Amino acid sequence: MRIALDAMGGDHGPDEKIAGAIQALEETDLLLTLVGDEQAIRSCLDRMAPAENVSARIQIVHSSEVVEMRESPVDAIRKKKNSSVMLAFDLVKKGQADAAVSAGNSGATMAAAVRKLGRLPNVSRPGIASVFPTLKNPVVMMDVGANVDCRPQHLFQFALMASSFARVFDIESPRVGLLSIGEESGKGNQLVKEAYAMLDSSSLNFIGNVEGRDIFQGDVDVIVCDGFVGNICLKVSEGLVEAVIQMIRQGVMGSFAAKIGYLLARPVFRRLKKRVDYAEYGGAPLLGINGTGIICHGKSSSMAIKNAIIEAQKIVDNKVNDRIAASIAENLEVPMEKK
Amino acid sequence: MRIALDAMGGDHGPDEKIAGAIQALEETDLLLTLVGDEQAIRSCLDRMAPAENVSARIQIVHSSEVVEMRESPVDAIRKKKNSSVMLAFDLVKKGQADAAVSAGNSGATMAAAVRKLGRLPNVSRPGIASVFPTLKNPVVMMDVGANVDCRPQHLFQFALMASSFARVFDIESPRVGLLSIGEESGKGNQLVKEAYAMLDSSSLNFIGNVEGRDIFQGDVDVIVCDGFVGNICLKVSEGLVEAVIQMIRQGVMGSFAAKIGYLLARPVFRRLKKRVDYAEYGGAPLLGINGTGIICHGKSSSMAIKNAIIEAQKIVDNKVNDRIAASIAENLEVPMEKK
Repeated sequence: MRIALDAMGGDHGPDEKIAGAIQALEETDLLLTLVGDEQAIRSCLDRMAPAENVSARIQIVHSSEVVEMRESPVDAIRKKKNSSVMLAFDLVKKGQADAAVSAGNSGATMAAAVRKLGRLPNVSRPGIASVFPTLKNPVVMMDVGANVDCRPQHLFQFALMASSFARVFDIESPRVGLLSIGEESGKGNQLVKEAYAMLDSSSLNFIGNVEGRDIFQGDVDVIVCDGFVGNICLKVSEGLVEAVIQMIRQGVMGSFAAKIGYLLARPVFRRLKKRVDYAEYGGAPLLGINGTGIICHGKSSSMAIKNAIIEAQKIVDNKVNDRIAASIAENLEVPMEKK
Repeated sequence: MRIALDAMGGDHGPDEKIAGAIQALEETDLLLTLVGDEQAIRSCLDRMAPAENVSARIQIVHSSEVVEMRESPVDAIRKKKNSSVMLAFDLVKKGQADAAVSAGNSGATMAAAVRKLGRLPNVSRPGIASVFPTLKNPVVMMDVGANVDCRPQHLFQFALMASSFARVFDIESPRVGLLSIGEESGKGNQLVKEAYAMLDSSSLNFIGNVEGRDIFQGDVDVIVCDGFVGNICLKVSEGLVEAVIQMIRQGVMGSFAAKIGYLLARPVFRRLKKRVDYAEYGGAPLLGINGTGIICHGKSSSMAIKNAIIEAQKIVDNKVNDRIAASIAENLEVPMEKK
C-alpha cells in the first residue's frame, strides 16, 4: 500500500512531516510518496539519513506550489493546480497512491479531495471526523468543520459514515449519540430534533441525545453534530486543556513543596498530556469522498504525522469506504418521523 | 436590598441553599426572603442556628409546590402557580424583592421570570449569560441555553446585554467577540456571518470572531453565541475539567512517588479546582427581563448560592437593567451590512 504525504502544508516546514514519514516507514511495510519541493525534501532526507530499507520505500513527486494556511480554500484550489495538496490527491485519483495525508489548510485539503476524487454514491456532504480521547475508548465526532450549515439528512449521513469509520477501532456496533443540550428527545434546536427522528428510525445503534459533558466519559462511540458545533467543541477542548496545564504550571511555580510534588508526579502529567493529545490519535479522516484522505493539525508533530499515516492504512485495510457506501445505500429510505 | 431565594429547587434539598443564604447574610447587609416549604425551612434554620443579626434579616414565604428538575418548563409554569420559583419571581414583580435566585429547573426559572416580569423594552429574546473562568479575567458568554434557534438580531442583542452586564466586573468598554470557527469575518455559519455585520456596525467594542480556544485565554470580555452552541461549550468545559481531574487521580494511584507528589502539590490542585469551578462565579444571570433573576446550577454548593446572591446584589447596584435598556434603545437602528 502506498500513501501520499503532502510534505509542505502546515505551520512548520517539511521537517516534522518527513520525520513522521520516516517513523511510519520504520514501523510498517508501507510505501510513501512525499509531495513537495523536491530540493527541500531531498536536503531534509539527507540530514535525517533514514536506513536503506526505509529510503528504498520513499518516492518524491515535485510540486512547485504550497497552499498557505490562511489562503481561501476555493481560490487556492482554483489557482494552485500544482500545489502539493492537489498533487497528493491527484496521485490517489490516478491509482498511484491509496490515500493522501496533509497537515495543510484544512479547507483546501477538503476541497482538493472533493475536486479530485468526488463523493461516494448518494453522499450529500462529505465531512471531517475527529477522534476525541475519553476516560475509556476514543470517540469519533463528525462533522468537525467541513459543513457549517446542515440539514437533518446531513447529520444522519454523518452518523452512518462515522459509524463505518469506527470499525477501525474494532467496534462492532458503535453506539451513536446526537450532540444536544439535554438527554430527552425533545431537547435541542430544530436541526437536532429532526435528525433525532431519522436516527431513531434507522438501523444504527442510536442511544439518543448526548450532552457536551458526555464526550469525555467514553460511553458513546460516535457523536454526531454539525460542523460549526463540532469545530467549536474541538477548539474548546484544545484550549481548555492548554489553559488547565498553564494554570497548574503557574500554581506550581509559587511554592517549593508544590514544585517538588510536581516533579514527583510528572510522569502522571506526561501520560495525561499524551492521553489528551490529538497527536496520539493521528489526524481527522475525510469521510464521504471516493478515496481516502486525512487532515492533520497544522502544528502536527512528527508523531501526529506518523499516526495519521498509520490511520490512513487502517482505513484502507478496513475498507471503510465500502462500508460507508453500503450503509448509505441501506438507509436511503429512512423517513423523518411525523410530529 | 432584599433578595428572594428559591429554597427548594435543585438537585439537593433546602440545606445547601439555606447555608448559602446564611453565608451571604454574614458577608453583607442584605435582607433575604426564603421561598419554599415553611416547615422544612424552619427546621433547617433551627439546625443551622444563625446568629441573631443574621436571622433577623430572614423572612420566609411559604410555597406548597416545587418544580422538579426534569419537568417540562412550560407545563410546570402552567400547573404549579404556587411553586417556589414562581412565588420568588412574584415577590420581585410586587416590589417585595429586588431580585430572585433559583438553583432549580433552569427552563422553568427562565419561564417564570418572563411570565412574571416580562421583557425590557425592545428586547426580542431574553437569555442566560454565564461567566467562564480564564487565565486572566472572567469572560461573560451569552446565550448559554435559553434560545436554541436564533436570528442575527438576537445575537446582536445578546452582545448589547452581556456588555451591559460586564460592568459588574468593572470593565469600562468590554471587548466583544463573536464565537465562530475562524478569526476572519467570512468564517462561520450563516447566522454568525450576518451577526458579524451587525456587531461591526454598532457602537460596541467589537473585536471580531473568536474561536473556542480563545475562551480561556482571557483576551475577550464578552463572547456571543446562540444558546445551543453556548450550552454545549458550558457542558464540554465542565465535562473536560472533570475528566482531566479523574485522569490525574487515576494516574496518581498507580505510583507511590506520584502519590507523594500529588499530596505535596495538592494546594495547587485545590486552587485550580477553585479557579475553574463555576461555583466561584455565582450563577448565570437572566438578561433582558424586566427585573433581576439568577439561575444557579442544580447541584450548587452553599458557596455557589452565596456567590449568586452577592452577584444579584451587584447587578441591582450597578443598574444593569437600565444600562441594557439604554444600550438596546441606542442600537435599534443598526443595519445589517449589504453583501
